Amino acid sequence: MSEQSSAPFFEILTSDPASQARTGRIVTAHSVIETPVFMPVGTRGTVKALTQEMLEALDARIILGNTYHLFLRPGHELVAELGGLHQFISWPRSILTDSGGFQVFSLGELRKIKEEGVEFRSHLDGSKKFISPEISMQIQHALGSDIVMAFDECTPYPATPTEARKSLELTARWAQRSRAEFDRLKTSDVTPAFLFGIIQGSVYHDLRQQSLEQLLEVGFEGYAIGGLSVGEEKQMMYDTTEFIAPLMPVGKPRYLMGVGTPADLVESVARGVDMFDCVMPTRNARNGQVFTARGKLNVRNAKYAKDTNPLDAECRCAVCHRYSRAYIRHLYLNDEILASILCSYHNIAFYLDLMRQIRQAIALGEFTTFRTGFLSQYKSATNPNGNFASDP
Amino acid sequence: MSEQSSAPFFEILTSDPASQARTGRIVTAHSVIETPVFMPVGTRGTVKALTQEMLEALDARIILGNTYHLFLRPGHELVAELGGLHQFISWPRSILTDSGGFQVFSLGELRKIKEEGVEFRSHLDGSKKFISPEISMQIQHALGSDIVMAFDECTPYPATPTEARKSLELTARWAQRSRAEFDRLKTSDVTPAFLFGIIQGSVYHDLRQQSLEQLLEVGFEGYAIGGLSVGEEKQMMYDTTEFIAPLMPVGKPRYLMGVGTPADLVESVARGVDMFDCVMPTRNARNGQVFTARGKLNVRNAKYAKDTNPLDAECRCAVCHRYSRAYIRHLYLNDEILASILCSYHNIAFYLDLMRQIRQAIALGEFTTFRTGFLSQYKSATNPNGNFASDP
Repeated sequence: MSEQSSAPFFEILTSDPASQARTGRIVTAHSVIETPVFMPVGTRGTVKALTQEMLEALDARIILGNTYHLFLRPGHELVAELGGLHQFISWPRSILTDSGGFQVFSLGELRKIKEEGVEFRSHLDGSKKFISPEISMQIQHALGSDIVMAFDECTPYPATPTEARKSLELTARWAQRSRAEFDRLKTSDVTPAFLFGIIQGSVYHDLRQQSLEQLLEVGFEGYAIGGLSVGEEKQMMYDTTEFIAPLMPVGKPRYLMGVGTPADLVESVARGVDMFDCVMPTRNARNGQVFTARGKLNVRNAKYAKDTNPLDAECRCAVCHRYSRAYIRHLYLNDEILASILCSYHNIAFYLDLMRQIRQAIALGEFTTFRTGFLSQYKSATNPNGNFASDP
Repeated sequence: MSEQSSAPFFEILTSDPASQARTGRIVTAHSVIETPVFMPVGTRGTVKALTQEMLEALDARIILGNTYHLFLRPGHELVAELGGLHQFISWPRSILTDSGGFQVFSLGELRKIKEEGVEFRSHLDGSKKFISPEISMQIQHALGSDIVMAFDECTPYPATPTEARKSLELTARWAQRSRAEFDRLKTSDVTPAFLFGIIQGSVYHDLRQQSLEQLLEVGFEGYAIGGLSVGEEKQMMYDTTEFIAPLMPVGKPRYLMGVGTPADLVESVARGVDMFDCVMPTRNARNGQVFTARGKLNVRNAKYAKDTNPLDAECRCAVCHRYSRAYIRHLYLNDEILASILCSYHNIAFYLDLMRQIRQAIALGEFTTFRTGFLSQYKSATNPNGNFASDP
């Protein structure tokens, strides 16, 4: 049994004088997490195509699990019975679980939103299900998550100000109920968990501020920016983040959900964000798209047929150390599983290494230089719009 | 450049007094291989779902590549241009390539056998191709294989004695042409390779003996038993091996192609076989079938839903050390790539560990005890008939 340690849940280590960027440290019962951090997405209790050993070798300190998917299969009761998600998947470090909201709202026709919660039909077998703020807390509690997300309504894009306001009001009431249920469950906990609220308000600054204020009244251990990267223009995402992040409590972690490209990470860190998750590195890997310091490339391209270079000449990961583009291209053309393994490994290595570089640059007071240099070299590869909050 | 080392290509270390079993050592330019050995099948230059790092961790000393598949894609010229198969796939240890014969003959309607060689249509795009003994040697030479197989006609099963005789006569002529072309190519080699002949003759002992004698006249560095595990009764396979293996040269490696189950390995070692290959451990892994000391199990079975035991309680592989049946079952039900990775890893670990146990038992003079004990514990799980010579 771990007792509440003396280390605070979150502390800031360095603040960049020239931007909102900062480095910090999150401490959970399962790991110490240096921020800004990118969290690989392990939708169903596996970061696709990677072993837990590989994630450890890559020094991932926290991964994400999707409440919606784990609720449907294998079910949170089963996971709890087997000792919780950490033990079930054999992952000793931290886990953040989302609330299930994003996936449920993505079901469109299959779901019905009420004050009490959301009725929906499983995408697996059509069976009727129900998730409320209380149930979402119970599921995440059963999973044994380190960082629990409040159950929110992810406001669709586009939304009129009226729609967005109605949606954030619901999110505020659900945030309160999430907090109450989380605290009720927490009394029996041996391992501390932490609850984050989610700010909605679409692209309207006044509504974002209103949503934040409502959450602050409830009080959370961290705050997330939800409802972005859902189809809006990239500049709107940057602007909304730039507006709201500095208003969020300085001493609490700030999490931009479902974002993003390497350029998005750098730009959002500059605007004050500490935490990210996105399926892009793993999903794109399975299609042969890999990230490099010089931008994206698709290794299936015929021009790599005889290319004996590594995926990224500047990368020091185990895949770039050993395998050539020509070989990985050959694996893709033959639908070999190893193609997905190698590109997923490299892409996660690239993302985690980028975050290490970001943290180092901030710590050395050189973040502005780093940001300019990285973006000009990366050529601001554009992000195909759309949120990537789970990897089913 | 490696010069012909003083170590012989093959030497016997121990002979079991109570059976035909023996331990030995094969030395190639790329690794030292303890025999009896099981060679994981890397059809297209990848042992499916495993990284080369994993194969090294499992201490695989030699893997198999399929000439037919590599000839079609990416093509042996490309592989040669990129430095050979070892370099292309980044595998520093030994590689055995088959002759392409087995896959070509499996094409049925799509192929036409002539004295000169075999015309066939690619299963990938229907294009017309031709492989002769000379071309097979050229392909395997371009790949840079350590152990090259002569181009044979794999006699179908069932075959009348007349058909089988006609087939082995062709194989004998092709063996001679394979030897001549191999030797011609060899003069320019910096890295020594070794050529094996393949005995045909179906299930007829006199024909097997005749085929062997024809090959002995040509002379090879090793001899393989082909045309078994192609649909005949298991006992016929054992009987044919039992008859022919002791007639094969004592001082040369004996290779039983495309075999088999764990029980087949133990039984065939007892009959004097030194080398094996089979796709069973990797192919079955991708369907959830895993090998354990107590027999096979399918981890997708509902009874493993809450089973926190490892796949095989007696296995010390990294997968059994870390992951539970319940988790791996969950991965299968969700078509997660990690399911194939973990079960392939375990199954290859099981096969390689079985061979280690076999070698140790022979060396200690306890092979008969081991054989009895293993088979009674393994419950002689039956081999679904059919040869498994590639893993496409």
